[in-house]
Amino acid sequence: MIEVGIVGASGYTGGELLKFLNNHPQVEIIAATSRQFEGVPIHKVHPHLRDMNIQFENIQPGDLDADLVFTATPHGASMKIVPEILETGARVVDLSGDYRFDDYDVYEKWYGFKHTHPLKAVYGLPEINREKIRGADLVANPGCFPTGGILASLPIVSEGLVDTLIIDSKSGVSGAGVKPTEKTHYPNCSDNVSPYAVTSHRHMPEIQEKLGNFGDVRVSFTPHLVPVTRGILTTVHSFLKEDVSSDYIKEVYDNFYKDEPFVRVLDVSEVPGLSSVRGSNYCHIGCFDIDENGRLVVASSIDNLVKGASGQAVHNMNLMFGFPETEAIDQMGMHP
Amino acid sequence: MIEVGIVGASGYTGGELLKFLNNHPQVEIIAATSRQFEGVPIHKVHPHLRDMNIQFENIQPGDLDADLVFTATPHGASMKIVPEILETGARVVDLSGDYRFDDYDVYEKWYGFKHTHPLKAVYGLPEINREKIRGADLVANPGCFPTGGILASLPIVSEGLVDTLIIDSKSGVSGAGVKPTEKTHYPNCSDNVSPYAVTSHRHMPEIQEKLGNFGDVRVSFTPHLVPVTRGILTTVHSFLKEDVSSDYIKEVYDNFYKDEPFVRVLDVSEVPGLSSVRGSNYCHIGCFDIDENGRLVVASSIDNLVKGASGQAVHNMNLMFGFPETEAIDQMGMHP
Amino acid sequence: MIEVGIVGASGYTGGELLKFLNNHPQVEIIAATSRQFEGVPIHKVHPHLRDMNIQFENIQPGDLDADLVFTATPHGASMKIVPEILETGARVVDLSGDYRFDDYDVYEKWYGFKHTHPLKAVYGLPEINREKIRGADLVANPGCFPTGGILASLPIVSEGLVDTLIIDSKSGVSGAGVKPTEKTHYPNCSDNVSPYAVTSHRHMPEIQEKLGNFGDVRVSFTPHLVPVTRGILTTVHSFLKEDVSSDYIKEVYDNFYKDEPFVRVLDVSEVPGLSSVRGSNYCHIGCFDIDENGRLVVASSIDNLVKGASGQAVHNMNLMFGFPETEAIDQMGMHP
Amino acid sequence: MIEVGIVGASGYTGGELLKFLNNHPQVEIIAATSRQFEGVPIHKVHPHLRDMNIQFENIQPGDLDADLVFTATPHGASMKIVPEILETGARVVDLSGDYRFDDYDVYEKWYGFKHTHPLKAVYGLPEINREKIRGADLVANPGCFPTGGILASLPIVSEGLVDTLIIDSKSGVSGAGVKPTEKTHYPNCSDNVSPYAVTSHRHMPEIQEKLGNFGDVRVSFTPHLVPVTRGILTTVHSFLKEDVSSDYIKEVYDNFYKDEPFVRVLDVSEVPGLSSVRGSNYCHIGCFDIDENGRLVVASSIDNLVKGASGQAVHNMNLMFGFPETEAIDQMGMHP
Repeated sequence: MIEVGIVGASGYTGGELLKFLNNHPQVEIIAATSRQFEGVPIHKVHPHLRDMNIQFENIQPGDLDADLVFTATPHGASMKIVPEILETGARVVDLSGDYRFDDYDVYEKWYGFKHTHPLKAVYGLPEINREKIRGADLVANPGCFPTGGILASLPIVSEGLVDTLIIDSKSGVSGAGVKPTEKTHYPNCSDNVSPYAVTSHRHMPEIQEKLGNFGDVRVSFTPHLVPVTRGILTTVHSFLKEDVSSDYIKEVYDNFYKDEPFVRVLDVSEVPGLSSVRGSNYCHIGCFDIDENGRLVVASSIDNLVKGASGQAVHNMNLMFGFPETEAIDQMGMHP
Repeated sequence: MIEVGIVGASGYTGGELLKFLNNHPQVEIIAATSRQFEGVPIHKVHPHLRDMNIQFENIQPGDLDADLVFTATPHGASMKIVPEILETGARVVDLSGDYRFDDYDVYEKWYGFKHTHPLKAVYGLPEINREKIRGADLVANPGCFPTGGILASLPIVSEGLVDTLIIDSKSGVSGAGVKPTEKTHYPNCSDNVSPYAVTSHRHMPEIQEKLGNFGDVRVSFTPHLVPVTRGILTTVHSFLKEDVSSDYIKEVYDNFYKDEPFVRVLDVSEVPGLSSVRGSNYCHIGCFDIDENGRLVVASSIDNLVKGASGQAVHNMNLMFGFPETEAIDQMGMHP
Repeated sequence: MIEVGIVGASGYTGGELLKFLNNHPQVEIIAATSRQFEGVPIHKVHPHLRDMNIQFENIQPGDLDADLVFTATPHGASMKIVPEILETGARVVDLSGDYRFDDYDVYEKWYGFKHTHPLKAVYGLPEINREKIRGADLVANPGCFPTGGILASLPIVSEGLVDTLIIDSKSGVSGAGVKPTEKTHYPNCSDNVSPYAVTSHRHMPEIQEKLGNFGDVRVSFTPHLVPVTRGILTTVHSFLKEDVSSDYIKEVYDNFYKDEPFVRVLDVSEVPGLSSVRGSNYCHIGCFDIDENGRLVVASSIDNLVKGASGQAVHNMNLMFGFPETEAIDQMGMHP
Repeated sequence: MIEVGIVGASGYTGGELLKFLNNHPQVEIIAATSRQFEGVPIHKVHPHLRDMNIQFENIQPGDLDADLVFTATPHGASMKIVPEILETGARVVDLSGDYRFDDYDVYEKWYGFKHTHPLKAVYGLPEINREKIRGADLVANPGCFPTGGILASLPIVSEGLVDTLIIDSKSGVSGAGVKPTEKTHYPNCSDNVSPYAVTSHRHMPEIQEKLGNFGDVRVSFTPHLVPVTRGILTTVHSFLKEDVSSDYIKEVYDNFYKDEPFVRVLDVSEVPGLSSVRGSNYCHIGCFDIDENGRLVVASSIDNLVKGASGQAVHNMNLMFGFPETEAIDQMGMHP
């Protein structure tokens, strides 16, 4: 049994963390912090958690006495609290972008400000860093697009089958967070599809850095907002350097992911669906079709709030504390 | 004043044709045919056309006595009736894929059957064939994806700035037609994004053939179904052969389309929206962003049933009969 | 030809007014005002109006020199500017709630503040006030729910067939306006249905007062927000005082609305659809079913931004200035 | 540990049953039958159940050797197989309408055909029949609308506070089942709200019969289809016979449901949301507002596939076999 705190528990990822941790037999939630909602029962913000008897508290991160703290705080905010949490002896899974980069220069270039507390962290994508995560004190939980994009690309990059990737992602609106904006105003995003941060999204360098460790590859990335609540469908286009078949490609993926508890490799021409993974920690990967120009199409689906955020964070916790990997996050998707 | 017939008037494109033609001061609709709905008032099928006092009739295409016939019939069906309509002396705008290809071998390869009546037709994309359309007896109305994809790519292909295009399109469900299927079942396509015909869609060779007339280019194409009723958002990814700026690219588009009544070139980094063109015959083109790898992103939006089908068909009619180009199809989009 | 100004032109109703007036052969738009967007081309706010070459201006309402001014301003704001506009000699169609009530005490009770400039106005529902509107200087454009609710109820109230109405309305999100809020945040309203202001909505007394002029009736009203962009579906439940048939009821509606250009009475058991009226000024009324308890169900559909707001405002203008009633607002719905 | 079979496992309710039973520590699924999909792995039909290693089988219901059989078969089909399953010694939870009525004359009137095997069954709404369910061999699982409608009305009917109910329900499209139809075609139900079976829905007499056991009440019911995948929001309008307050009403509900594991009574004016119960077996009940006419509004939300079907069926199983009531169905909702 470990004691766990959640800093910034009023957002969508906070709500998901609370739900998963509530079902975890070896976890006791000792605090869910929120400055804005201090003293408010969590179900006023997370209406589906009516049966959890917890209130938001306004505790200074450094005053938490926990074995593990999840920091579900914005970019730029995490770096200000993670060091003091580590000093209390707690381990940390940070859900912001602050500790995802090995190269802090890249961070500063793309996030546009100075990193005040660069620390050594482990990038928490279990499929590439399982062993390092087990021993880590600070795990940087991956971005949602990188999770879907890296998993869809990793086997072909590792095998050296491609050197250029065009990643065209379609994200549900919950990815934009809990705060209403022009972009998330129903009449603006319903019945619409919007490319955004077309060549400047911060998840691009994250994908580039991580895949770069596995092969020489040039990543181009464009996200789109689609009228979907949860889920990211990522389409990876790449030109094969060798004349191989779809069956061969599928085999490469099968081998690469054969022991992974949360990655499922579909059949050739089988299309991953968002409902297949909705509410679940799974990533489905499929298509593997190749056109006359030698372009390979691989598509992946994840739930951006689960495998793309809180589910993966709990997966990291399970690894860090030696719990069964799938504990509390083994539910299947929701279709329809 | 011309007399116009619509063969296959019970589908979505038939409904749009009826609506546009009803507003056209120089057109009299003499027949709207449907075998299935013979004798039924059109508003039982097209509930928004309650004020048009027309019934579906089951007339043999060769018995129509019209100046112009729109054939809104499926692939493979049009080729069986277009020749007999032409023999009556009527001119034809065909909305199927049957007459879109110059090279009938390509047609037969991708459509999977023998073309029984190959005829010389003009490809009805006014932006490339305006003059030929004026004199044509048979105009092949372009596919919806090719309309959005070609218009988004034409200027850079013409200028020789690129040699490879990856076209990633997102289409509303009305593009799948009026007939309910697994794919169009609400619980299957709501809250979902589905790539389909990932490397095998018939609109790919259509885009390839038409763009190929303007430059040496290799087209890769993947469509996606998105939970939107009307509209196609097309994202064109390409690697620039020269080091030019976004402003330069925008200028190329501005010049190319400066006299076009239905194409609007947006600002650099401005994103085309589906509501901007919903219900209208416009095509909006924007983005023009370039990333560090020299990848250019251009995005276009159209209403698949208007600029992607019936509006463009009326545009072709206006050209063929010397009417003002924008007559009856000059309405603006619908936002929100 | 008349000169028309729009005060508060940056909201959804402003956008619709601009679009309709732009197509009106006897109207010149002399000003579209907005404090927030002064100097900005309207298409930056209304992306579908790219082809209208107009900028928002920050003009004091009293400085407008127009024949007619539409005030698309919030409740409480209209009352402050309408008097000074009237003093310039212009006539006014006000789209707020400020001048909808004959009884200003009712207004003050339900709107919660003192009315500073109570004036004599005509309630602009042409179906009940056509002649008075023609001669009016100040027309109060009806609320969206009252438009759909009154039209669905008027014939049976006039005939004295019912004395109690339960009006259960389902509204699209554009009715909540252009400003993002918790309620309009996509993840909150997508895949959801929310009753709101369940017994306290300001449109209830408006419906009550207007129907009360036609018969002794007690109105209960509850609106719901549904994941739809445009449109209101109103279901009116009432217990018939006499044992009459559905056919009889339909006849009552047919007779009542037989000369109305924008009301369509459907068949018994025929259900009005939102797409039938989307983007149009029509109101469709149908159902007329009666259950074993003598409960009658009548349902109506309107586009909340057109018949429920800007289209009806233009209809009022047409009446006030002797233009053809349907000028510029005669387009049909958009299905799908 | 019991052995359980599911007859008709390829529909949405079959998929939900499979998912819940898979998580039940005391259940072994011995068969999932489907004639259409014989030999097909279930994940080809239920893409979210990829990790369950089960194939559909075509077994005659009478050949099943189970402790419990769920019959997720259509109305009229269940009555043909339930008797032979009971003869094998298995107990049955039937999800069709065939055994929901005490009065088979009412069944035959509303379902339009003769019941060939009328049997004594227990109506499986645990909130009213908990004890009878424990001992039953045949449980008739309630309809989705009756579940939401009865639970929202039961306390005030029991207390004799009302004598007439107008139940206006809004249902997600998954309620129409897995088979594509005109009604479920995305372009028809997206951006639309449709009343249907306005005075003739078969769930009306079901609600009437069950509530009638608790008080003298007249039920009027109208369902609507809304563009939502899962969920039913039910609005109950009724005129109070006595002058009581909202707080009093809430107290009545609190007392009535105080020991219920799956019913949650919200605060006065608090609105139940579909996301609060999505994927869960909860029913949320709220509003309790009263207007000037003495009309009370109570609203309830359920997931039509869980509390409205498969979750409730598992709840019934838990009762029948003495398992903990919430076993395998205790997950919380999914928001957003």
